[in-house]
Amino acid sequence: MSTLTALTNHQIRLASRPSGLPTAANWRHTEEPVAEPGPGGVLVKTLYLSLDPAMRGWMNEGKSYIAPVEIDAVMRAGGVGKVIASNNPGFAVGDYVNAGLDVQEYCLISAENIKRSGIFKVDASLGLTTWTNVLGMPGMTGFFGLMEVGMPKAGETVVVSGAAGAVGQTVGQIAKIKGCRVVGIAGGQAKCDWVVKELGFDACIDYKNTDVQSKGVRAGLKEHCPNGVDIYFDNVGGEILDMVLAKINRKARIIICGAISQYNNTTPVKGPANYLSLLVNRARMEGIVVFDYADRYHLGVAEMAGYLKSGKMKSREDVVQGIENFPTALLKLFNGENFGKLVLQVAQD
Amino acid sequence: MSTLTALTNHQIRLASRPSGLPTAANWRHTEEPVAEPGPGGVLVKTLYLSLDPAMRGWMNEGKSYIAPVEIDAVMRAGGVGKVIASNNPGFAVGDYVNAGLDVQEYCLISAENIKRSGIFKVDASLGLTTWTNVLGMPGMTGFFGLMEVGMPKAGETVVVSGAAGAVGQTVGQIAKIKGCRVVGIAGGQAKCDWVVKELGFDACIDYKNTDVQSKGVRAGLKEHCPNGVDIYFDNVGGEILDMVLAKINRKARIIICGAISQYNNTTPVKGPANYLSLLVNRARMEGIVVFDYADRYHLGVAEMAGYLKSGKMKSREDVVQGIENFPTALLKLFNGENFGKLVLQVAQD
Repeated sequence: MSTLTALTNHQIRLASRPSGLPTAANWRHTEEPVAEPGPGGVLVKTLYLSLDPAMRGWMNEGKSYIAPVEIDAVMRAGGVGKVIASNNPGFAVGDYVNAGLDVQEYCLISAENIKRSGIFKVDASLGLTTWTNVLGMPGMTGFFGLMEVGMPKAGETVVVSGAAGAVGQTVGQIAKIKGCRVVGIAGGQAKCDWVVKELGFDACIDYKNTDVQSKGVRAGLKEHCPNGVDIYFDNVGGEILDMVLAKINRKARIIICGAISQYNNTTPVKGPANYLSLLVNRARMEGIVVFDYADRYHLGVAEMAGYLKSGKMKSREDVVQGIENFPTALLKLFNGENFGKLVLQVAQD
Repeated sequence: MSTLTALTNHQIRLASRPSGLPTAANWRHTEEPVAEPGPGGVLVKTLYLSLDPAMRGWMNEGKSYIAPVEIDAVMRAGGVGKVIASNNPGFAVGDYVNAGLDVQEYCLISAENIKRSGIFKVDASLGLTTWTNVLGMPGMTGFFGLMEVGMPKAGETVVVSGAAGAVGQTVGQIAKIKGCRVVGIAGGQAKCDWVVKELGFDACIDYKNTDVQSKGVRAGLKEHCPNGVDIYFDNVGGEILDMVLAKINRKARIIICGAISQYNNTTPVKGPANYLSLLVNRARMEGIVVFDYADRYHLGVAEMAGYLKSGKMKSREDVVQGIENFPTALLKLFNGENFGKLVLQVAQD
């Protein structure tokens, strides 16, 4: 294994905390030699990193559902890689794994972290990037959030924002499989067409459509949710959350998964002015964090994998090349430029 | 019964819909002769009317959890009265009843309304005004809201706003009985002292205290909720809701019962800017409407009556005299002037 130490590990570290959208100045590129794995540990070569809206929150100081990334630390990221050295009988060189790899080319995973389930083997036949998407954290977020908090019943109307994103595409497809009417909200005609024509959503509202013929999201909800909204899976917050609140049914469930419209605010978050619709409709708004379901990921993965194999579900990723492009690639999430789950390819397999 | 027709029924009707706080111009005083009850109906003499924050909502146009009061209709109100004429074998002259009496001196209740459980006999030995308070709609709102949505467990911290009001006093006392730490929020030292010293709350924060020594509600929550907030029963909305959201624990439950701080807004409702605390804490915010529990009111009343009889619970009403004072009495709710459940006494027993 002595050849490992000849390898250089390029990394991207958090240099400073952003105000508003992250800029180049918030990042620092570093390199260091690759080390041998410790006793019981493994060394993983990063292939694909998952770029997620939640990353913006990790860059902020202060308590959240997970500790912030420290200044000068390698930026946190999950991803898929290949084991290139192993001192652990559970992992062989050549195994494909999903793990917290961070934004770097090589990642050492300690025995302790392996014990804490910080790494697991993946079935490459389902596609490597799929494990950052429908079969990864976003997929599990969508699956457990929809099923456990949303509790969909056949015939109900489910609205999902960020519909072409990683969580959104999972939520909408599961809701269809469960017999619901599914209405997406996405930015741009291409994404809307894709979720309707390829994923089978019943309709999709283009929130970026400023055509004078269009009345926007409000009119779209009125047209496509003639029986109101039973479940809203919210990835965006802001005005759209308020517009959906105005359309919810008695006993509706609103799953608060994210609020990407608010993450780069330099002004206070816009709270939902229509929240009293919860009172009028005896409805519920509940937050979810995927980690709470970690002991059942394998069940979610098994169900999603079954749908993928049988063709009932699709997984679309938008792959950007090169670790050096991490800072600019991340911004695609916030202007809605990514089409499908945003993934950074760090190395060829 | 022909003497009934000699009686005059004074009424207060909604003359126009208010913008902001209701004014005298929004009301019209009318009088009409009292009619005999129809077949199977009863005639009730109004003794006490319940004045509630929700009344402000009923004065607005548009869909809510209940139809608005129509212009020129007698203002909707529940209350306690005495049967003075009956064509129904279930009710005798002299019976005390709780019913939708509206803001008038006499109310005819039809056979159909009786069948729909629009009237029920009350035990006067527990106090007549108690039936507008702990044993009435506010009490049932507090009881079912706390128990069914809040699901308190012994040792948890429960915060309730409007703590000295009808719903608040019920919620806090039940939460104490269930073994919780209870922190009230109320306006003024007298109310705070009362809920702590008389009702047994663990603490009460005076949101009106502008003493420079005081840091307000935020500091009060920090001081009195050292283990965070597990349940927040919200009657007020606005800034206080945001401050509590900043203090909630993992899996907290927020019961949205009302938002009195927002009812007279002429600007849009202030949505809770800290609502993403629901995500971070996997917490839930859920609206309740008491009518949903109508088939179990008798169970709630029986439990509350038991606590009242055994001295575990108290019920405090603030009684204003005279139907002609309805318009000004109602305003006491919105400036927080009432001390205890606000009740209008329309007639002597």
